[in-house]
Amino acid sequence: MARLGVDYYPEQWPRARWEQDADLMAEAGISIVRIAEFAWSELEPSPGTFAFDWLDEAIDLLAARGLAIVLGTPTAAPPAWLVEAHPEILPRRADRRLHGFGHRRHYCPNQPAMHAATRRIVAALGEHYGKDERIEAWQIDNELMGRCTCDACLARFHDWLRGRYGSIDALNESWGTVFWSQRYDDFAQVPLPELGQVPPYGFGREAPSPSLALDYRRFTSDSHIAFLRLQVGELRPRIGPQQRITTNLMGFKFAEIDYHALSAEIDVVAWDNYPLLDPTGRWSSPALAADAMRGLKRAPFWVLEQQTGAVGWEVLRTPRRGQMRLHSYQAIAHGAELVSYFRWRTARFGTEQHWYGVLDAHGRPGRRYHELAELGRELEQVAGALDGAEPVSVAALLHDYDSRFALQIQPTNPSLGYEETVQRHYEAVRRLGVGVDVLAPTAPLSEYRLVVAPNLYVVDEALAAALHGYVEAGGTLVLAPRAGVKDRCNVVPELPFPALLAGLAGVEVVDVASVLDADPVQFAGVDGGPDGAFHGWYEQVEPAADARALAIYEDGEFAETPAIVSHPVGDGRVLYVAGAADQATLDRLYRAVAPEAGIAVAELPDGVECIQLRGAETLLVLLNHADEERDVPLDGGRRDLLAGVDHDRSIRLAPFGVAVLAPVRAAIGAEK
Amino acid sequence: MARLGVDYYPEQWPRARWEQDADLMAEAGISIVRIAEFAWSELEPSPGTFAFDWLDEAIDLLAARGLAIVLGTPTAAPPAWLVEAHPEILPRRADRRLHGFGHRRHYCPNQPAMHAATRRIVAALGEHYGKDERIEAWQIDNELMGRCTCDACLARFHDWLRGRYGSIDALNESWGTVFWSQRYDDFAQVPLPELGQVPPYGFGREAPSPSLALDYRRFTSDSHIAFLRLQVGELRPRIGPQQRITTNLMGFKFAEIDYHALSAEIDVVAWDNYPLLDPTGRWSSPALAADAMRGLKRAPFWVLEQQTGAVGWEVLRTPRRGQMRLHSYQAIAHGAELVSYFRWRTARFGTEQHWYGVLDAHGRPGRRYHELAELGRELEQVAGALDGAEPVSVAALLHDYDSRFALQIQPTNPSLGYEETVQRHYEAVRRLGVGVDVLAPTAPLSEYRLVVAPNLYVVDEALAAALHGYVEAGGTLVLAPRAGVKDRCNVVPELPFPALLAGLAGVEVVDVASVLDADPVQFAGVDGGPDGAFHGWYEQVEPAADARALAIYEDGEFAETPAIVSHPVGDGRVLYVAGAADQATLDRLYRAVAPEAGIAVAELPDGVECIQLRGAETLLVLLNHADEERDVPLDGGRRDLLAGVDHDRSIRLAPFGVAVLAPVRAAIGAEK
Amino acid sequence: MARLGVDYYPEQWPRARWEQDADLMAEAGISIVRIAEFAWSELEPSPGTFAFDWLDEAIDLLAARGLAIVLGTPTAAPPAWLVEAHPEILPRRADRRLHGFGHRRHYCPNQPAMHAATRRIVAALGEHYGKDERIEAWQIDNELMGRCTCDACLARFHDWLRGRYGSIDALNESWGTVFWSQRYDDFAQVPLPELGQVPPYGFGREAPSPSLALDYRRFTSDSHIAFLRLQVGELRPRIGPQQRITTNLMGFKFAEIDYHALSAEIDVVAWDNYPLLDPTGRWSSPALAADAMRGLKRAPFWVLEQQTGAVGWEVLRTPRRGQMRLHSYQAIAHGAELVSYFRWRTARFGTEQHWYGVLDAHGRPGRRYHELAELGRELEQVAGALDGAEPVSVAALLHDYDSRFALQIQPTNPSLGYEETVQRHYEAVRRLGVGVDVLAPTAPLSEYRLVVAPNLYVVDEALAAALHGYVEAGGTLVLAPRAGVKDRCNVVPELPFPALLAGLAGVEVVDVASVLDADPVQFAGVDGGPDGAFHGWYEQVEPAADARALAIYEDGEFAETPAIVSHPVGDGRVLYVAGAADQATLDRLYRAVAPEAGIAVAELPDGVECIQLRGAETLLVLLNHADEERDVPLDGGRRDLLAGVDHDRSIRLAPFGVAVLAPVRAAIGAEK
Repeated sequence: MARLGVDYYPEQWPRARWEQDADLMAEAGISIVRIAEFAWSELEPSPGTFAFDWLDEAIDLLAARGLAIVLGTPTAAPPAWLVEAHPEILPRRADRRLHGFGHRRHYCPNQPAMHAATRRIVAALGEHYGKDERIEAWQIDNELMGRCTCDACLARFHDWLRGRYGSIDALNESWGTVFWSQRYDDFAQVPLPELGQVPPYGFGREAPSPSLALDYRRFTSDSHIAFLRLQVGELRPRIGPQQRITTNLMGFKFAEIDYHALSAEIDVVAWDNYPLLDPTGRWSSPALAADAMRGLKRAPFWVLEQQTGAVGWEVLRTPRRGQMRLHSYQAIAHGAELVSYFRWRTARFGTEQHWYGVLDAHGRPGRRYHELAELGRELEQVAGALDGAEPVSVAALLHDYDSRFALQIQPTNPSLGYEETVQRHYEAVRRLGVGVDVLAPTAPLSEYRLVVAPNLYVVDEALAAALHGYVEAGGTLVLAPRAGVKDRCNVVPELPFPALLAGLAGVEVVDVASVLDADPVQFAGVDGGPDGAFHGWYEQVEPAADARALAIYEDGEFAETPAIVSHPVGDGRVLYVAGAADQATLDRLYRAVAPEAGIAVAELPDGVECIQLRGAETLLVLLNHADEERDVPLDGGRRDLLAGVDHDRSIRLAPFGVAVLAPVRAAIGAEK
Repeated sequence: MARLGVDYYPEQWPRARWEQDADLMAEAGISIVRIAEFAWSELEPSPGTFAFDWLDEAIDLLAARGLAIVLGTPTAAPPAWLVEAHPEILPRRADRRLHGFGHRRHYCPNQPAMHAATRRIVAALGEHYGKDERIEAWQIDNELMGRCTCDACLARFHDWLRGRYGSIDALNESWGTVFWSQRYDDFAQVPLPELGQVPPYGFGREAPSPSLALDYRRFTSDSHIAFLRLQVGELRPRIGPQQRITTNLMGFKFAEIDYHALSAEIDVVAWDNYPLLDPTGRWSSPALAADAMRGLKRAPFWVLEQQTGAVGWEVLRTPRRGQMRLHSYQAIAHGAELVSYFRWRTARFGTEQHWYGVLDAHGRPGRRYHELAELGRELEQVAGALDGAEPVSVAALLHDYDSRFALQIQPTNPSLGYEETVQRHYEAVRRLGVGVDVLAPTAPLSEYRLVVAPNLYVVDEALAAALHGYVEAGGTLVLAPRAGVKDRCNVVPELPFPALLAGLAGVEVVDVASVLDADPVQFAGVDGGPDGAFHGWYEQVEPAADARALAIYEDGEFAETPAIVSHPVGDGRVLYVAGAADQATLDRLYRAVAPEAGIAVAELPDGVECIQLRGAETLLVLLNHADEERDVPLDGGRRDLLAGVDHDRSIRLAPFGVAVLAPVRAAIGAEK
Repeated sequence: MARLGVDYYPEQWPRARWEQDADLMAEAGISIVRIAEFAWSELEPSPGTFAFDWLDEAIDLLAARGLAIVLGTPTAAPPAWLVEAHPEILPRRADRRLHGFGHRRHYCPNQPAMHAATRRIVAALGEHYGKDERIEAWQIDNELMGRCTCDACLARFHDWLRGRYGSIDALNESWGTVFWSQRYDDFAQVPLPELGQVPPYGFGREAPSPSLALDYRRFTSDSHIAFLRLQVGELRPRIGPQQRITTNLMGFKFAEIDYHALSAEIDVVAWDNYPLLDPTGRWSSPALAADAMRGLKRAPFWVLEQQTGAVGWEVLRTPRRGQMRLHSYQAIAHGAELVSYFRWRTARFGTEQHWYGVLDAHGRPGRRYHELAELGRELEQVAGALDGAEPVSVAALLHDYDSRFALQIQPTNPSLGYEETVQRHYEAVRRLGVGVDVLAPTAPLSEYRLVVAPNLYVVDEALAAALHGYVEAGGTLVLAPRAGVKDRCNVVPELPFPALLAGLAGVEVVDVASVLDADPVQFAGVDGGPDGAFHGWYEQVEPAADARALAIYEDGEFAETPAIVSHPVGDGRVLYVAGAADQATLDRLYRAVAPEAGIAVAELPDGVECIQLRGAETLLVLLNHADEERDVPLDGGRRDLLAGVDHDRSIRLAPFGVAVLAPVRAAIGAEK
């Protein structure tokens, strides 16, 4: 069963309060506490002098009440004495200005003085707590992020390029530096690319080489991973085998670090789940994030920060009543083993005063505390059923950081945004009640009936071959426009698009339309394909002889040519969607495609999410994200484990309501 | 009676023109001229060499025609020779770039070289003109403003903090620097906070400590005040007792300097009144500004720059015909003893070519000149009645710079904007024809029947006690949401909101909703309270046993709980408005509240402002801010002193029309 | 006949491909190839070592197929070795940050090291290719642009000012530096002005002196021209008389360089024509650009970059089918002798991967290639008729860079935007089928029946006299608001507006209205004048005794006074339009004015452009810019040379269709 936790900062409250806090946690059913990240200045008040006594005392208190500990390394907040002695550790922002002391994350991950100070504090923590059985896990740093442009980064970037290309000639060749006379005689001549907004005219209007820009993004991602590895290297020899190492990632929307690469360095994936930080408020947003995080290791994950109340630094947004519970169930149903609420008590000072915790700043238990305690009781009630239950996924969605980075550099058309496109495809599949694993393109795919690959912009031969193998063996693959447009150097292959995927997709793109602020182009389904519309971007394709159209443009410049093409390959088939499809179109498309791929689909009302879990028995978790009641049809009698009531043909969900249904007859959705 | 003046730059025009200008001024009824601010390079052409002859000559000419002089110190425009010799005086902007020569205000108020040069020119002016009886007053500098981030400011900030906190431990404790390991070992480690826009991701996204950010704002405010004091210190020993010292402030909307603190340093409050610079164009905007300026010393004030024509640097806005006269009467009715028009003649060169004066750049008297002369004649006509008349205020509005600064740092919700919230409450009271004094929270309040305290975000115990005393003695106090949220260090008290005011308000906030782009929440009045709506921010409150609801939420998450609470305290009562109320709601609220507070209210058509003055007799000034005619009901016969006509039951005002009414029977509005 | 060309980068493609490219070009009817601009690092791989063999080989190959060469100097892309040796050549942007290596145009035109390197490469190219008869022309650099703020520019600016003003006293007098104490003791004290966005409050809010800002704009323009002249100076002595020198300008919308001054330095005017970069998509936009470019030397011009497909760096826009052909005909009809398509083949790497060429990146001939070849065949078909034919213009439009620069500094009102105002007037005349020459104000005007001078903001006495002479001799001159507002120092004359033009215009402006976001003011035509409306800006004028109103304000503050005034001067007349007129108003105005000026007008459907050409016979080129069919009435039988069909009373144009009509009877439009 998923455990509940809280993020606790004892150093920010009087010692006299600690027992009361620990008692309140235990009474609410909390079983784990994250602690000490950001506490560097308390743990090492002056260089090399450590003060662990207060932390020992806090851990004693918590552990005495049965609470386990996730211990953070405090490197996201270097103390004033370190910055004073080594101002060079301050990172430079995209505009080359220093990011100074007085915030957090005010360090460059490539600075030697930061490395030395990090090794010292992490080693000391490892020595002190590495054998402590009350410590269940370590969180390295906090929300790694940022692209630094300091001189140390420039020098390290040159090394990184040397390691990747070997010779400057190879780099010149790979990047095509003959363009605009950008040929380099030496790695030392390579600049960091300009980032961020550029003025409409004049100097600075120029965009950097896409190849340079992509490698810089990879380099900054690798820099954070290397910094993480440095800490793991200090901890691993000092900690016991029962202690796991993690770090708190930032879900799907954050796109500065290749989490596929990062997750190889840690024992368990953890992330921070703030549904309200997504201004669209779509339910599929935390769902996609959770599936993406689970996909990093294809394993259950932890939520180390779960939203409890209003969040924001300058401006707050408050969740609706019931959403804390709803989003907790959502996280658990998608694979969370641990849900730790940020933060135990609202801060009285500092930047995050508006980031509401379980308790208000005044410290008296209130609505959120009682809701959390109630949730703890509920979870015990369904613990038996949920124990060991894991989400069932018959579909996979391919998630590629190279493509994301490359599209950050050249967005091409607003309708092709990576995050939005992936989310539309994901939501269309999830609305059918079908589980989705979100995976790196290199993941094994044979177990999935359907593989969705929107915006697979960067492709190499190995990937093309793997996808071919998947389809040939009977899989169904959906490709969307701008597949195969770039190689790994962000260079366009000398082939008609989708280039290395053209043979597999059974199409060649012969013309494109990229329009802004225009009406959508309409198409009509044929042969079982869906009616629909593309916005902003659409293509004219020439189908291979053995391909057939599933939809035909009704208007626009490509009228009467195929808008969606189906191509049989071996025992499987590939669908090529030739434009940026809107949500309704994708909903129809996947509803048409799924049965042919052997996937059973559900009829779900708007706003209702359905997650199928397989444990001792197969469960359905129904989540009503709407603020109105919803009636959900059932395909047979089911028992609601939370309400303790049986339902025959349908179940009524309250606004933001949740049901955990045990099976009586056949389940919604196919099993894989 | 209010005098009329002009702002004149003889140095910008040929000597041969001066007599004609002085003649034209005198003929138009002008009696005072502001002169010489910005003229540093003409007064001190090279370091230590002074050239006062041209100014003597100009003053001779003006005085010969009966015009008195307000003499500016020219420090807002340091000359090129000073910047060349001391480039360090150039201020650094929020983005740390220099604000270079070629504009104005290109000095940091904390730079020693600027101090030395300032002392020299001000002392020389004081020596030369200090005993000159034609000089009525001194204007120090011009529109003090700007937040500098140079190294001198950083060093001075450290001194300022040392003075405020005594020890670095005290600062750490007060600010809560344990948050994010921001503990300082020494004042020298404290940085200036980041200001301005931050990128959505990456380094620099972090907001600084609210405590640091608030103290920096106080420090920059104090820096300007200290620079003003330095000039006063040079002038005071050199000038005669008849000469008064002032500076031109910027009304209510400007929020970089604590004008309550500043005004203690000067003899008379003066400000610059440009109604068209407020893009909303609301009539209550210059009215609020005037009342706020009058409140600084609770005394009549001067307008040293009053709009005459189109204004703007890059893009112009022109006033409507009649608005110059209308806004002049508005300023006078709110307490202006002097209205000086900016500027005498439109500039032919320099940044302000689009800032239209009384004359056009071509110099021939035109429409605006003739309107000004006509206004002068009108004012003479009502001089007897207006002489010594002062606005009658039975209500006070509390205006707190600490709260403004703190909300700049954490706006919380767009609906809680300090300036907008204050203006809505102010306008609601003023629409009743009720006079308002806008005062520092520390002002004595006993004489007011109603005290309005919107956005009293920062509160300390002394203030809480003073408000309690006011209410207990029979006053009516209106509090709005987010009262008492912070202490003077911008730290949240360990108490349920409104914290130190909870006992007085008779409520505790138990939950909050902060929503963006959502429908308003509705409530219904009970027990005489108003119907209405909150937008963006609203709270659930628990009333004290002796409190009663005046309105109940009809929908939203807090439905059926109180939206407005009335709490009797001693002989008075407190109203707590639990959300961000729109204008219509506040209009209804104050119309309901005023009679219970013993305040008589008027029925005024939309756009008509009514100011009650008490002089030899009680006058009503009616201002029609609408561009259509308006009929205003009268509560008895009155004589229009401008038109020389008697009215019985009502008066018709022309578009942008003005009436000055002498009493026959009872006045509109209660007297205090 | 106009020739077709392509822009080709052989250095970006394998040597083995070159023959195929040359063959394909020749087969498509291409007769000229632009080459080698941006190839600096290939032509001079290390300082002073030249590698021209590859270019020789490419030229051999192309010339062997009859293709002539336009050879670019590569200075827009300084190589890495130059930047490494002389980092000081990197320009500083408006925000004072360096524009670094990794883009293009990364040089300051005033840096000595850049001058030296430029001389060396240009001289070497001149030596090598100067006598080569296959080289038809030289393109200097590429799209000169940018305003640098480096120290070398500051020093050069001081020299430039010294040259212009002689003494610092003269500068002080001319600029009016007495304003805000900005008087300079020495040229070395003059700063570069602040450019770009300024924060709404605080330091940096101040706008610089308009006189300083105007001279800086002139200086940066002159800097680019001087850099061009430096290259011409190296080439001219080394090249044969058959070789012409040009550079590729950027049409009308680009406003950083005074193209009138620049064009005196080159033999033929060339520009880059990307209709889709104008977000409004108006057909008059490339038409105006072409007429402005033709007007620079009053001679036919070249298009060195013509759009073929989608363009954009980050985001693409694709033209509609048929627009490549349509825009090619438009360019030719407006005077293009050469239309060279950018680029031959879409780049596989580098910043411009999304800038689509004739071929796709994959290199196989597709739709655009075949359309180009078809266009080549069509053009041969009409070659006889078009040979030597030139556009007929009876109207001239005055285009003044001083006024543009001055309005960049003080836009005054959004409705007065220079580019938009000129385009509205231009389009109104062109909709009548009337040809327009777009000329410097100093151009001889006697041959034109109508001269349109919108936004003639900066005026001196010579210009006023020339315009007077034109009208006196029988011309019709149209002036719009804000004429004559400034002198050449950006200072306001001491005269009622339109100042030096007031006598000619027969009006004096006595009041102005500048409103934002307001309803338009309406006026009614009298005496043959048009009904219409002004938006944002309008003026009250006092007509001279011999002037008469053509329209009278119906509402607003100036109701019942003239909105348009006609003033007879000698044998001609002047129309003064007293506000910012919208398109429909101007359409009516010019339709009323043209016949009185002796100009015949056509009735053209919306979106249809008509260009009259005079060659061996008078031709009409009809261009349907609409995506629907259009019927165009004819004033007599005409033969469509493209379709080979005769038309009697009208012709139907396909969407984006083109017709080239030979005369049978009288032509549309008057002849001059």
